[in-house]
Amino acid sequence: MASLYLKTSISDPNSFPNSPKPFLTRPINLPLRRQTHPKIRSTTRISASLIDPDGGKLVQLFVPESEKDSKSKQASGLPKIRLSKIDLQWVHVLSEGWASPLKGFMRESEFLQTLHFNSLRLENGTVVNMSLPIVLAIDDAQKNRVGSFTSVALVDEDDDLVAFLNDIEIYKHNKEERIARTWGTTAPGLPYVEQTITNAGNWLIGGDLEVINPVQYNDGLDRFRLSPAQLRDEFEKRNADAVFAFQLRNPVHNGHALLMTDTRRRLLEMGYKNPVLLLHPLGGYTKADDVPLSWRMKQHEKVLEDGVLDPETTVVSIFPSPMHYAGPTEVQWHAKARINAGANFYIVGRDPAGMSHPLEKRDLYDADHGKKVLSMAPGLERLNILPFKVAAYDKTQSKMAFFDPSRAQDFLFISGTKMRTLAKNRENPPDGFMCPGGWKVLVDYYDSLAPSENSRVAEPVPA
Amino acid sequence: MASLYLKTSISDPNSFPNSPKPFLTRPINLPLRRQTHPKIRSTTRISASLIDPDGGKLVQLFVPESEKDSKSKQASGLPKIRLSKIDLQWVHVLSEGWASPLKGFMRESEFLQTLHFNSLRLENGTVVNMSLPIVLAIDDAQKNRVGSFTSVALVDEDDDLVAFLNDIEIYKHNKEERIARTWGTTAPGLPYVEQTITNAGNWLIGGDLEVINPVQYNDGLDRFRLSPAQLRDEFEKRNADAVFAFQLRNPVHNGHALLMTDTRRRLLEMGYKNPVLLLHPLGGYTKADDVPLSWRMKQHEKVLEDGVLDPETTVVSIFPSPMHYAGPTEVQWHAKARINAGANFYIVGRDPAGMSHPLEKRDLYDADHGKKVLSMAPGLERLNILPFKVAAYDKTQSKMAFFDPSRAQDFLFISGTKMRTLAKNRENPPDGFMCPGGWKVLVDYYDSLAPSENSRVAEPVPA
Repeated sequence: MASLYLKTSISDPNSFPNSPKPFLTRPINLPLRRQTHPKIRSTTRISASLIDPDGGKLVQLFVPESEKDSKSKQASGLPKIRLSKIDLQWVHVLSEGWASPLKGFMRESEFLQTLHFNSLRLENGTVVNMSLPIVLAIDDAQKNRVGSFTSVALVDEDDDLVAFLNDIEIYKHNKEERIARTWGTTAPGLPYVEQTITNAGNWLIGGDLEVINPVQYNDGLDRFRLSPAQLRDEFEKRNADAVFAFQLRNPVHNGHALLMTDTRRRLLEMGYKNPVLLLHPLGGYTKADDVPLSWRMKQHEKVLEDGVLDPETTVVSIFPSPMHYAGPTEVQWHAKARINAGANFYIVGRDPAGMSHPLEKRDLYDADHGKKVLSMAPGLERLNILPFKVAAYDKTQSKMAFFDPSRAQDFLFISGTKMRTLAKNRENPPDGFMCPGGWKVLVDYYDSLAPSENSRVAEPVPA
Repeated sequence: MASLYLKTSISDPNSFPNSPKPFLTRPINLPLRRQTHPKIRSTTRISASLIDPDGGKLVQLFVPESEKDSKSKQASGLPKIRLSKIDLQWVHVLSEGWASPLKGFMRESEFLQTLHFNSLRLENGTVVNMSLPIVLAIDDAQKNRVGSFTSVALVDEDDDLVAFLNDIEIYKHNKEERIARTWGTTAPGLPYVEQTITNAGNWLIGGDLEVINPVQYNDGLDRFRLSPAQLRDEFEKRNADAVFAFQLRNPVHNGHALLMTDTRRRLLEMGYKNPVLLLHPLGGYTKADDVPLSWRMKQHEKVLEDGVLDPETTVVSIFPSPMHYAGPTEVQWHAKARINAGANFYIVGRDPAGMSHPLEKRDLYDADHGKKVLSMAPGLERLNILPFKVAAYDKTQSKMAFFDPSRAQDFLFISGTKMRTLAKNRENPPDGFMCPGGWKVLVDYYDSLAPSENSRVAEPVPA
């Protein structure tokens, strides 16, 4: 069985009804503030050192426990900005340093560099990758309330204090330009745009973030949300000399597993002694027709129980970022954030973070652009990009195998759409496509949605 | 009188009816191939060396005279691609090295880096700026004709051979994505888009350019189109130790002149001994309501005759690039190209390369974004950016002066729109706004357009 790890700081007995039980054999005490004594730690560990975070130091934006009370009192005198659920996910992302060296919601200079260059130049002249704007929108009334204050308090939907934004800068939110430069289209129907931008305010507020209360979701999955610092600790404990990250927001099938196993084999061939896999499902906002996180985690659990992946060399954790579905622009963010968590290899698939064009009968992005852009992206030179090998169902072996074009007729391609359609219709995929337990989770998920037990979903015609 | 310089290779007695007479006092023999013996030259010159071209070496893509015949014969066996007028302007730009180190129309890796990062990473790891896609579109029929050929012949609208494109690569032309990432909008009505992209083919063809016949326009202005190599020679001859470039596509008024004179003063204060101004009107495609190049050159001539700028320290030449009107994205191109011509200072104005939003009542770009983006742009770190100081008409002095906010009521702002409206209506601007000779050229231009002598143009309401 593969291992997942509990956060020591969070013990939530009231797990979400559909949430998986923690699927781990050996709970581990994770230090919450590894960064305080890195030198002492490094002398007691044998492992090769992990890749440095962007900017050299992992950003963590939490107010120390001892100052929480005094800080919290200051909030009453400040203008308040209420965060949406997705804003809160970005506070989570920023607070733990996934976007290191970013220290808060972007100011205009960071926003412009992100839109135009997909990267930030630091004061010392080095360049780090930063492809998605991490910004906080406010409307005219909120801007007026902020007035000449230099700090604001950020509160959640229950008005509970979450964080401060200090040394603030308010600037124009040109939505059209932001959308065009991020997605390469302004077509209506982009999920993240409709969810967070279309109705957002006409101003952006940037500043330095200071988080009082770490973001929790109370969905039974918080224990699986390891911070970059915690992941780095785990990789060091395991003496990992290479960490390869696999970003996913879909159920894992045996083709994925084959790829991950094969990647480890290749890394061993390259001379690494202990490559560790970070299997890293995205946990933030996803569009309505994606499988929700709780069901995906259940599915991953079943797949892992099946022993397809080696528990000794696999770490499963949740990546807290929301999805933009911005293809080549977003895949850079997915890769960059994993550097901060210690990964020096990144597996990139076909059409990463892509989707169908919202208006036209075609994919929004060229399927190869993601890996091409990623391989050329500024600030990611230190990261080794591993392009996805194409896996398909080999009918002669009744299992997933790497596609061999010399005997193309032996292979069956089962797309994500096809997979979902089969599960919706309670049909089984060919043996060896996915372990039966994992498949059952998918069927159960679609059952939980179906208005009528006997409804049958037509297979969409591919564009 | 300021100096303009003849190209030695071109002598065109049949000048365009409306073209200005060459306005120069001392024609200079410009060597066409300065690059062949740079070492010999540098030992005979006292001047500090000019800024290096991007990539270290100025690209020039001309077939040597001795090989022209044999090369031209090869063309008959190759597929032909007919170039539009604007394509030809890009061949001109590429051939002389304005886009160094680019050696031809972009292949996909260059196109993607341009769209996503506004820069190219060279093989040695260094980064050069490249913000506008310089691409050649072909349609399905042309793609089929190219078939498996690895070279194509590029011909002009008369089917005369211009150049070869070698080691070609054909890739998809995703127009929507190109437009969105270049302009930050996909609104219909962008001039360059409607002119060159909307009806263009669905493929782009990149490769190495080899130019047989240098691009000429036979408009009486070819002699003023100095290449980067020729400009560098001129700056070296003058022992320039700083070159400051001023890009313009509008008539020069005394506010511009004040700015240029003041910039030289500031550079002298900084310790430079001989700063030289490159006054560099854009000569390629411009939108219909801009003043055409031939009239602008006439106007510049009058302004220069008036002695507002010092002929000893001013070089006037034509920049052959077409205009995109892509604001912060385009201003990088304008600056980068001038590095290749030897400029190490670049004057950037308010809302450079900007225009009104084609659909909404606002400017397309934030007026400050151009200078902000330029100051942060990758690959332009070597270039000194000089933000435009705001000049306005000082009523107390009856001349253009730098705006003093402490006595704002003394100043009159005369926008480009206002200026054009006055000229269209044959009204005079306040004394001291522009020299009378220059103003008359403007009035004459609008007279040449007016369908009726007595027509009066209403002043547009500012957005």
